[in-house]
Amino acid sequence: MQHYILLLDCPDQKGLVYNITRVLYQHDLNIVSNNEFVDLERQHFFMRTEVEGNINETNLLADLYAALPKQVKLVLTQEHKKKIVVLATKEYHCLGDLLLRNHFDNLNAEILAVISNHNNLADLVTQFKIPFHYLPHENILRDTHEKQVLDLINRYNPDFLVLAKYMRILSPYFVSHFREQMINIHHSFLPAFIGANPYKQAFERGVKIIGATAHFVTNNLDEGPIIAQATIPVDHTHNAASMAQAGRDVETLVLAKALKLVFEDRVFISQNKTVIFD
Amino acid sequence: MQHYILLLDCPDQKGLVYNITRVLYQHDLNIVSNNEFVDLERQHFFMRTEVEGNINETNLLADLYAALPKQVKLVLTQEHKKKIVVLATKEYHCLGDLLLRNHFDNLNAEILAVISNHNNLADLVTQFKIPFHYLPHENILRDTHEKQVLDLINRYNPDFLVLAKYMRILSPYFVSHFREQMINIHHSFLPAFIGANPYKQAFERGVKIIGATAHFVTNNLDEGPIIAQATIPVDHTHNAASMAQAGRDVETLVLAKALKLVFEDRVFISQNKTVIFD
Amino acid sequence: MQHYILLLDCPDQKGLVYNITRVLYQHDLNIVSNNEFVDLERQHFFMRTEVEGNINETNLLADLYAALPKQVKLVLTQEHKKKIVVLATKEYHCLGDLLLRNHFDNLNAEILAVISNHNNLADLVTQFKIPFHYLPHENILRDTHEKQVLDLINRYNPDFLVLAKYMRILSPYFVSHFREQMINIHHSFLPAFIGANPYKQAFERGVKIIGATAHFVTNNLDEGPIIAQATIPVDHTHNAASMAQAGRDVETLVLAKALKLVFEDRVFISQNKTVIFD
Amino acid sequence: MQHYILLLDCPDQKGLVYNITRVLYQHDLNIVSNNEFVDLERQHFFMRTEVEGNINETNLLADLYAALPKQVKLVLTQEHKKKIVVLATKEYHCLGDLLLRNHFDNLNAEILAVISNHNNLADLVTQFKIPFHYLPHENILRDTHEKQVLDLINRYNPDFLVLAKYMRILSPYFVSHFREQMINIHHSFLPAFIGANPYKQAFERGVKIIGATAHFVTNNLDEGPIIAQATIPVDHTHNAASMAQAGRDVETLVLAKALKLVFEDRVFISQNKTVIFD
Repeated sequence: MQHYILLLDCPDQKGLVYNITRVLYQHDLNIVSNNEFVDLERQHFFMRTEVEGNINETNLLADLYAALPKQVKLVLTQEHKKKIVVLATKEYHCLGDLLLRNHFDNLNAEILAVISNHNNLADLVTQFKIPFHYLPHENILRDTHEKQVLDLINRYNPDFLVLAKYMRILSPYFVSHFREQMINIHHSFLPAFIGANPYKQAFERGVKIIGATAHFVTNNLDEGPIIAQATIPVDHTHNAASMAQAGRDVETLVLAKALKLVFEDRVFISQNKTVIFD
Repeated sequence: MQHYILLLDCPDQKGLVYNITRVLYQHDLNIVSNNEFVDLERQHFFMRTEVEGNINETNLLADLYAALPKQVKLVLTQEHKKKIVVLATKEYHCLGDLLLRNHFDNLNAEILAVISNHNNLADLVTQFKIPFHYLPHENILRDTHEKQVLDLINRYNPDFLVLAKYMRILSPYFVSHFREQMINIHHSFLPAFIGANPYKQAFERGVKIIGATAHFVTNNLDEGPIIAQATIPVDHTHNAASMAQAGRDVETLVLAKALKLVFEDRVFISQNKTVIFD
Repeated sequence: MQHYILLLDCPDQKGLVYNITRVLYQHDLNIVSNNEFVDLERQHFFMRTEVEGNINETNLLADLYAALPKQVKLVLTQEHKKKIVVLATKEYHCLGDLLLRNHFDNLNAEILAVISNHNNLADLVTQFKIPFHYLPHENILRDTHEKQVLDLINRYNPDFLVLAKYMRILSPYFVSHFREQMINIHHSFLPAFIGANPYKQAFERGVKIIGATAHFVTNNLDEGPIIAQATIPVDHTHNAASMAQAGRDVETLVLAKALKLVFEDRVFISQNKTVIFD
Repeated sequence: MQHYILLLDCPDQKGLVYNITRVLYQHDLNIVSNNEFVDLERQHFFMRTEVEGNINETNLLADLYAALPKQVKLVLTQEHKKKIVVLATKEYHCLGDLLLRNHFDNLNAEILAVISNHNNLADLVTQFKIPFHYLPHENILRDTHEKQVLDLINRYNPDFLVLAKYMRILSPYFVSHFREQMINIHHSFLPAFIGANPYKQAFERGVKIIGATAHFVTNNLDEGPIIAQATIPVDHTHNAASMAQAGRDVETLVLAKALKLVFEDRVFISQNKTVIFD
């Protein structure tokens, strides 16, 4: 007995669920779980279904395509570990958490390699038997450095790229290589405090909450589709440094939560937003 | 164009979603939203579907019953305001919140009457033009008082009974009249602090969180199916009284949230638990 | 035995706590609670102390002034109900909550009157026996309307002005009359979504949290010192309208929490921030 | 310039703060932060003060003892890394988090060693260059095993013992060796779900929140003074296993938060509760 995940989105029309479940029934499959959403504004339909049974992938896909509108985006996949490359800079907390989850098989992904523009995390990564690549950005052109990073990533051919506090801005050229494949953790509750030094901005504004946002990366800095966000309370006793310290835990958790959702195929990108079946 | 909610639960079997959506398709109905859950432990299926179209209730129900297992529990309903009676004792916060929401048409329910064993909330209720009934419990037998309450409720024939800090224990006889129709707010995060004086218990235990639980009432005190729960932080500066004060807001919110879910037909009772599609 | 609250802030210097507590000791007063904070960046000292005993206000103040730096800001007050005027527009939820708390003596304030530029909340307010003033803004100049509001408020001479979803922008002239006395609830987690229609902005950005901010009003719109903030989760099933609906409860709670802090004399304004002893 | 933390608690009496700050002033010390609490029920006073200056420890302590009631409990300490031994069983999440924080100097403690009754975490611990001791409990008497653990701990002479999901019940004899020095993380929001398998209990009760509790260990199982607690929402789609999975993150965070508070000398034990200055 096989277990498959079916992901599809298409323009909404009457009979979609019926047509899909009819095909599944004809293939003698059992629906284990099923989530749907109709975006009424876009008139667009999203569905994630887990099915069990003896599956003939080719025939099932052919029958589904025949039953659905032409513009459908359809993915049939077995649960599998996504292959990822992690980019980091100097901070250990998000990276360390991912390494731990990866090591104990709790990430639904396999970390192929870690790349950093600093060297201080090398020991941490290599002690987990993960390749660590130190690509310093100093004394070379920004484009040259990015090209080195890109070439190195391409050697690994990952499903997803995770920016675990990678503090370099990426060019549109770079971003275009990983459309809908690159997840960043930003250290504020976006859209507040876009850009550099969010904790300094937060301290200066005197906010009573700080937060973190995990999002897909697009060409608009800090404006890609949001996957997960959370906040924690702070007060007047916090300065920018202690806010940053307090923020580490929420950054770590929000990134881990977002990755779990993405790696379990629960996240659809819908224009500049996400539809998430959790 | 009509808008209906279809609620059903039955033993799980292959083809359920297909069979249901087939009938809906044959009746030319559009599925606006659809939620399903299979309880793998009980092998039981739950579904809540909102449909739009020209509905012939009798025919639709007949076709659905024909397509589904015999043991199915099936409800087809249009969105409508539930009729409720509220029981209270002395505290104003939950009752006041319900009166406000009711008054501004934000409760998905209509409060038919409020009954209390004390008189101090009479002015509040009547100023909202809701009948208030004062049924004191003093100097009469417990059973006699309960019989008075029951008779009065029955005159209103409500869909649901809401215990908004009603501090009287109800007999199995009373409870049996309102199976799956009676919702209580308990002032602790159950199963912690069952019974009387939860805040005093919480203070004495030195907990760092307090909370509230909204649940259906069964014969086992504080042990009915839980609908909603939430907690808030407290610290060593709180005594039992200030915990009770701080707890008011979370009690109010948890009850309001639970009622919203119940009144929108989003809550299934599954043995001693709930399945909630929110 | 009297109970007093002593509030003071001044430039930080060695021996402040000693000098203050020495005076309190010489006056034979017992310290019931004591909070201090040194803003290291500003080198500024804040203190809130509750004392009990037989207090000679004049002598105590004289001795405290003698013991403290010249620039000290000193308030000695007995716990008392603050007098407030509430401004509202059309929405009932914050106002209704304040009326309930006021009615059941749970606000530490006395609502003197409610003023609105719409009439739909008149019944609600008057049924609580609070004066309601309808001052429509239509067909008159903005300045004229504001002058009417200002004159009316001045007749009540309140300690604080509460903007409970008052949807009019106030002029610097108006604001200057209520420096550090005017509290607003903004329906977003500031500084995100400054300005109009925060829920629409939130929906369009696809955020996964929404929130509310209570702050003192200054001449910079939505940029005054923040008193309290909170957030709640939302998801792709929310549109702008259902976000606004979900946001009501967090707006209500955040405003109530901020007012409780202010009315209990727990909030210091420190430039564009607050120092809060809760 | 030195930085010291002064911790004291004693029966409450008039003039305590004055007497303490007088001594500090006479020693020409600057108060950087100061927290006090009077437990009115116990009539007991707690104070935590951070001071800076040139400190003569012996003289300062002598003067403080002279100024304070006989029953005072007084600690004068410089901020320093606490020395800890961690006990674990099989689960990696709390232990892994502590190892990461320890490695990056973010724990305010130094992990001297990890002891486990299982061997599966050996690699993780040793890769962080921390001694790992495998003391299996199988095929030996409970008392013999505990004696081995105790002897091994005593060789390290730690300030605190951290039970990071150590799944063995400890005898009163063992507990008596580490009074107020042993911190446990329990995987429920105590007092709910005391004892074994809290997530199974939670699943069977159908709760909508789960949580974690960090507490000092006493002879009464799961009943020691609580340091920190938190909860997270769950729903009907969780079974006991997925609750346990979801609970890992909150367990990890609650333990880390409690340890930070304890290691920064912010936690007083007051009978069966804690007083925490955070």
